[in-house]
Amino acid sequence: MTYCVGLLLNAGMVLLSDTRTNAGLDNIAIYRKMFHFEQPGERVISIVTAGSLSVTQTTLARLREAIDDPDSTESTSILKAPTMLKVASIIGDMLSRVRQEIDEKMATMKQSASASMIVAAQRKGGAMRLFLIYPEGNFIEATEDTPFLQIGEHKYGKPILDRVVKPATSLADAEKAVLLSMDSTLRSNLSVGMPLDLCVIEKDALRVGRKRRIEAGDESFRAMSEAWSKALRDGFTQITL
Amino acid sequence: MTYCVGLLLNAGMVLLSDTRTNAGLDNIAIYRKMFHFEQPGERVISIVTAGSLSVTQTTLARLREAIDDPDSTESTSILKAPTMLKVASIIGDMLSRVRQEIDEKMATMKQSASASMIVAAQRKGGAMRLFLIYPEGNFIEATEDTPFLQIGEHKYGKPILDRVVKPATSLADAEKAVLLSMDSTLRSNLSVGMPLDLCVIEKDALRVGRKRRIEAGDESFRAMSEAWSKALRDGFTQITL
Repeated sequence: MTYCVGLLLNAGMVLLSDTRTNAGLDNIAIYRKMFHFEQPGERVISIVTAGSLSVTQTTLARLREAIDDPDSTESTSILKAPTMLKVASIIGDMLSRVRQEIDEKMATMKQSASASMIVAAQRKGGAMRLFLIYPEGNFIEATEDTPFLQIGEHKYGKPILDRVVKPATSLADAEKAVLLSMDSTLRSNLSVGMPLDLCVIEKDALRVGRKRRIEAGDESFRAMSEAWSKALRDGFTQITL
Repeated sequence: MTYCVGLLLNAGMVLLSDTRTNAGLDNIAIYRKMFHFEQPGERVISIVTAGSLSVTQTTLARLREAIDDPDSTESTSILKAPTMLKVASIIGDMLSRVRQEIDEKMATMKQSASASMIVAAQRKGGAMRLFLIYPEGNFIEATEDTPFLQIGEHKYGKPILDRVVKPATSLADAEKAVLLSMDSTLRSNLSVGMPLDLCVIEKDALRVGRKRRIEAGDESFRAMSEAWSKALRDGFTQITL
């Protein structure tokens, strides 16, 4: 499993991903699930991934190949695509193709492979866009009413997002919200694990302004987690039936 | 779907269930999922159910039939079984049989049926026991380390239980904890719905001491839910990264 979350706020976009990959409980490993494609000042595209590692790695590798291809066009390179909607569509088509290819191979073993992605993107002169791309290649987009998107093990971490994330939420609060959302998930699902990758893309900055890897022993994350536990217990104590 | 939770505490046991049943999003109904079998002063058995309504209703009906059968024995009637372990085993066997029967009928339509239960029970001279009975009829039991059991949509409501429920938790706090756990679930999963059924079985009381149905417009539940939202938001504000 995996847990990744993306927020689309008035002030910018925030992405957070874990790094645990597992083929069974007895075979776990650390793999980065956050990827950046930047042309600073022109466009920024950040992607977080969930699902079968062979699907997500191959999809990302082919997207990179397409970018590096001297014959790439507006329809094949996410760095040349004229709009971020087109970027989502290129990524979706690639994900769907790779998933189908691998799924066919897996079918011979009566298994299947799937993956999904969250894409945060902005181009010069355009609006910030946050997409959730499904394994079939179609996608949805975050809006004012629902300014966050989640992939992977999304349930444990949703209540906190539901309650505190609004389009007007500041980037500092957004960072706190996604980390607390991840904290609840880490406590309950062993297949989601540290370290974490966090990135913040400020509105119109057209670059990833802040990248942070939070290691397993991170002191500030631990302190935040404990403070949140204490706040929950204190809040619980104060409530009367 | 459904959400039911049971707590096994030093002071007693607490069960909470929702009442929503659905056959598709366009066909929802209210059905009680909490059932009591009492011989006050002798034994108390409370059951909450999740899963296919035809499986749970038929299982409960057959358990009642066995109780009413003048030829019932220690091996067939949960009111005659000598131990609560035997009670769990009778319920498990009945659930498994009914599920298999119905599952075979469903197989002709390429569908399947399943259900699970939580059983809180105590007999005179015995300890309180809290079991989770799986569709296959096997079961697990709550312990000091994990004093709560959940069935149905368990994920949204687990973080609060993880943080506040200990064997030493008071019954009043336990009631608050399960209601807040349900509140998080209600907010996130449409297939879990009001009204709610709550019961409290005090240690050695050998009867259900408190039964409460919480209707959709219940003022105290609404106030608690709002106070909790506020406590979460306040706690969130106070935490620093």
